[in-house]
Amino acid sequence: MNTIELIRKKRNGEILTRDEISFLISSFTKNKIPAYQFSAFLMAVYFKGMSVEETFYLTEAMLNSGKIADLSFINESKIDKHSTGGVGDKTSLIAAPIAAAAGIKVPMISGRGLGHTGGTLDKLESIPGFKTNLTLTQYKSTLKKTGAVLMGQTKDIAPADKLIYSLRDVTATVESIPLITASIMSKKLAEGIDGLVLDIKTGNGAFMKDQKDSEALAFSLIKSANDFDKKVIAFITDMNQPLGNCIGNWLEVYESIKALQGESAKDLMELSIALSGAMIFLGGKAESLQAGKEISYTLVKNGKAFEKLLEIVKNQGGDLKFINEPDKYPKSKVIEEINSNEEGYLEEIDTFELGIATAELGAGRKTLDDKIDPKAGIVFKFKIGDKINKGELIAQLYSQFPSKIEYVKKKFHQLIKYSPEPVKAPELIKKIIT
Amino acid sequence: MNTIELIRKKRNGEILTRDEISFLISSFTKNKIPAYQFSAFLMAVYFKGMSVEETFYLTEAMLNSGKIADLSFINESKIDKHSTGGVGDKTSLIAAPIAAAAGIKVPMISGRGLGHTGGTLDKLESIPGFKTNLTLTQYKSTLKKTGAVLMGQTKDIAPADKLIYSLRDVTATVESIPLITASIMSKKLAEGIDGLVLDIKTGNGAFMKDQKDSEALAFSLIKSANDFDKKVIAFITDMNQPLGNCIGNWLEVYESIKALQGESAKDLMELSIALSGAMIFLGGKAESLQAGKEISYTLVKNGKAFEKLLEIVKNQGGDLKFINEPDKYPKSKVIEEINSNEEGYLEEIDTFELGIATAELGAGRKTLDDKIDPKAGIVFKFKIGDKINKGELIAQLYSQFPSKIEYVKKKFHQLIKYSPEPVKAPELIKKIIT
Repeated sequence: MNTIELIRKKRNGEILTRDEISFLISSFTKNKIPAYQFSAFLMAVYFKGMSVEETFYLTEAMLNSGKIADLSFINESKIDKHSTGGVGDKTSLIAAPIAAAAGIKVPMISGRGLGHTGGTLDKLESIPGFKTNLTLTQYKSTLKKTGAVLMGQTKDIAPADKLIYSLRDVTATVESIPLITASIMSKKLAEGIDGLVLDIKTGNGAFMKDQKDSEALAFSLIKSANDFDKKVIAFITDMNQPLGNCIGNWLEVYESIKALQGESAKDLMELSIALSGAMIFLGGKAESLQAGKEISYTLVKNGKAFEKLLEIVKNQGGDLKFINEPDKYPKSKVIEEINSNEEGYLEEIDTFELGIATAELGAGRKTLDDKIDPKAGIVFKFKIGDKINKGELIAQLYSQFPSKIEYVKKKFHQLIKYSPEPVKAPELIKKIIT
Repeated sequence: MNTIELIRKKRNGEILTRDEISFLISSFTKNKIPAYQFSAFLMAVYFKGMSVEETFYLTEAMLNSGKIADLSFINESKIDKHSTGGVGDKTSLIAAPIAAAAGIKVPMISGRGLGHTGGTLDKLESIPGFKTNLTLTQYKSTLKKTGAVLMGQTKDIAPADKLIYSLRDVTATVESIPLITASIMSKKLAEGIDGLVLDIKTGNGAFMKDQKDSEALAFSLIKSANDFDKKVIAFITDMNQPLGNCIGNWLEVYESIKALQGESAKDLMELSIALSGAMIFLGGKAESLQAGKEISYTLVKNGKAFEKLLEIVKNQGGDLKFINEPDKYPKSKVIEEINSNEEGYLEEIDTFELGIATAELGAGRKTLDDKIDPKAGIVFKFKIGDKINKGELIAQLYSQFPSKIEYVKKKFHQLIKYSPEPVKAPELIKKIIT
C-alpha cells in the first residue's frame, strides 16, 4: 500500500478500508511510516473525520497493536469508569471502591495529569508507597483479590495509542472525535472489561467546551462500545467549575477519603454515586440506575466503601497511616488565603485557568517529564450560585514556593466573576445516554 | 513562539503574522522544528488556505532562506518564463533562445521531471556535455555573455523550498495554491528577475485539471509578483493533449530544434511564440504582446533564434553536433509503431496517463533518484479534432527495453477516445491575465 495515496484519500474525504487503516496503524507502530506522514494523516482526519466503520477499524487496529487482558478467569462482571478529564475530578477514587464493595470487579487503567487536568495516577501516588506500575500478571491477581485495581498503562496495552497520542499532542490534532474515541476505547477494551461507564465533561474546564461536541463524542464512544459488544452508559456532566472543593493530588485523595466517610461536597457525592450506581447496574448487581445509586449510598453509610479503599491501598503497597489519619499528611510550606474583593453571587469560574493555576503551584505538568508536588493545590470554597461577602475566604493556595504563590495570587481574582443578581447553579448531570 | 499553537492557529483558520510565518520557515529550514510538526502545518494550510498577506510572508521567508542573485550589473531586462508543467511542454527550449535573440536576458532556473511531467533540465542533459549544475558565479557570467542561462536550482537558491517541497511531495500537500505560489515565486525571485511570464496549464495533463483552479493560481502568482514589484503576464493554456508531437527528453530537444528552424506543430509554435513575445514585451523590447510575437516570428524565420540556441548549448558545454544534425542522434533499440484500431475523430487523450506511459518507457522517474533514458519517449501524431482512419499510424514508442514497450503498448489504445462526429479542437491559449 502507498502511504501518500492513503493520506490523499483521507484528505479528499474518502472512506478508508479496514486493511488500509490496519496498514497505517501497524506500519506507524513498527516505525515503517515516518512520523511526518502520520501527522499529515492525523491532520487530514481532524478535518475530514471518520465514518463509524473507519472509527471501529481504527480502534481495532490500535487495540490489536498490543495485548488484550484475558479476565475470563474472573466470573464477576468487570466494569470500568472513564472520564474525559476535568478539574478536581476525583470520582474514580470514590466510585471504584464503592462499586468494588458492591461486588463489581473494577479494572481501571488510568493516565497522568497534563496541562490543566489532573490524573488519577498522580493522585494515587501522593499516597506513600502506592504502586501504579503493575505488570499485567499483577493487574489480574490484584483485581481478583481486591475487586479493584488502579494502575498505569503498561507498554503491552495499546502501544499504538501511546505513540499516536504523543504525536497528536504536538501537532494540534487532539480535538478529533474519531481519534479520541479510538484512543479511549483501545485502552479500555485492552483491560478486558465487560462494560464501561463514561463521564463526558462539558464546559470551560473540559476538553469539549460545547455540550453538542460532548454529546457527539458520547455517541461515538457508545457506538464503539456496542460494536465491540460491551455494555455502556454515558453521562454528560458539567465542568464549568471544579468538582468538589479540592484541586491537587493529595488534596483530592483527602477529599475522597472524606467523601467515602460521608463528608463531601454535594456535587462530588452526587456524581460519584451516580457513576458507581451505573457501574453496579451495568455489572448486574442492581435492577436500575436508581437501585445502583441506593446501593452506593448504603455502602458509603455503612463504611464498606471506605474499607474497600483501605483494602485497595494496602494491596497496592500504599501506607494506610494517611488514609486512616489524613490530617497527619505533611503540609505545604506556604498556604496562602485568598479573600473576596467583591460582594455578590458567584457567576463564573475560569475552570481551565484554575486548573492551569493549580499546575503552576506544583500540582501539574507542562510536559510529561515534569515532576509534581503531591501537596500542592488549591482549595476553592464556593460553588456557582453561592453568595459571597466582601473579605470572605474564597480559596487557599498550597505550594512549596512563595514565588509560585505570588504568581498565582496575582491573577486569581481574574478567574472569578460575580453577579449582583442571584445566579442559578448549573445542572451537574446534564444527560444520561445509554 | 510555540509551534503547536501556530499549527492550531492555522488549523482554526486564523491568519498568521509575518513573524509567525518567518519563525516557522526559518526554524524548519534550520531543523529546529521536526518534520512531523511541519507536515501537520502544511496539511492545515491545505485545508484552510492562506490570505494574500500570508502568502506574501511565506514567499518572503522562503526567498530569504537563501541567496538572491544580484543581477544589477546587467543593464538589460531580465525576464524568465515558468510553466506549471505538462506533457510534451518544451516551450522553454524555444522561447528562451527567441527572447535572448531579441536582446532580453533570460535567467532560467528549472527543475527535473517527476511523475507524469518532463523537466527542462532532463531535456537539456540529453544533449551530450550540456552542463546544468552551474554555480551562482557561472550563472551570472553565462547570462551576461550568452543572454540566456538554463540551469538547475543551486543549494543557495531558496533552500527552504527544496525542503518543504520534498515534504509536501510525500504528505499529499502539493495541491495548495498558497504553497505552490510561494514555491514558484521564492525560486523565481531568487534568480534576480525583473519580470516573469507564467504558463499555467489546465486540463487532464496538468496539475490543475480545472480551469477555475488554474485561474485562481494565476491570480495568486500575479499578486505575489506584483507584491515583489516584478512585471508579470500569465497565460492559461490547454493541457488536454501533449504540446507538439514529441514526449521524451531528446525527442523534445529534437522537436525544439525543428521548431526554431521553422518546422513545428502548429500548437507548439503558437504557444512558444506567444510566450517569447510576452517576454520581449515585458522586457521592453516590444510595444505590445502582438509586436513581441511578430519579433519572435522574425527571429525564427531569419535564423537568429536557432543561432542563439547554438550559442546557449555551446556556452554550457553541450556538443553542437547533434544540434546541427539532430537526425544523427543515437536511436532507441526498439521503436514500435501503434496503429489506430478505430476510425473517427480524435476526441480525447488521457494526457496524464500518456505522460506516465512515457516515463515507463524510460523517459521519466518515479522518485528523484531514478535514472532516465534520454532517447526514450513517445511521438504522438495527431491532435484532438483530427480525422483518423483505421490502421493509420498514430504513435511511435521509443525504448531500450522490449518489455517496457509491450507494457505500454497493451494499454495504449485505452488512452485515446474517438468520436464518430467531428470534434472541435480545444482552444490552446484560454486566457491572458496581466
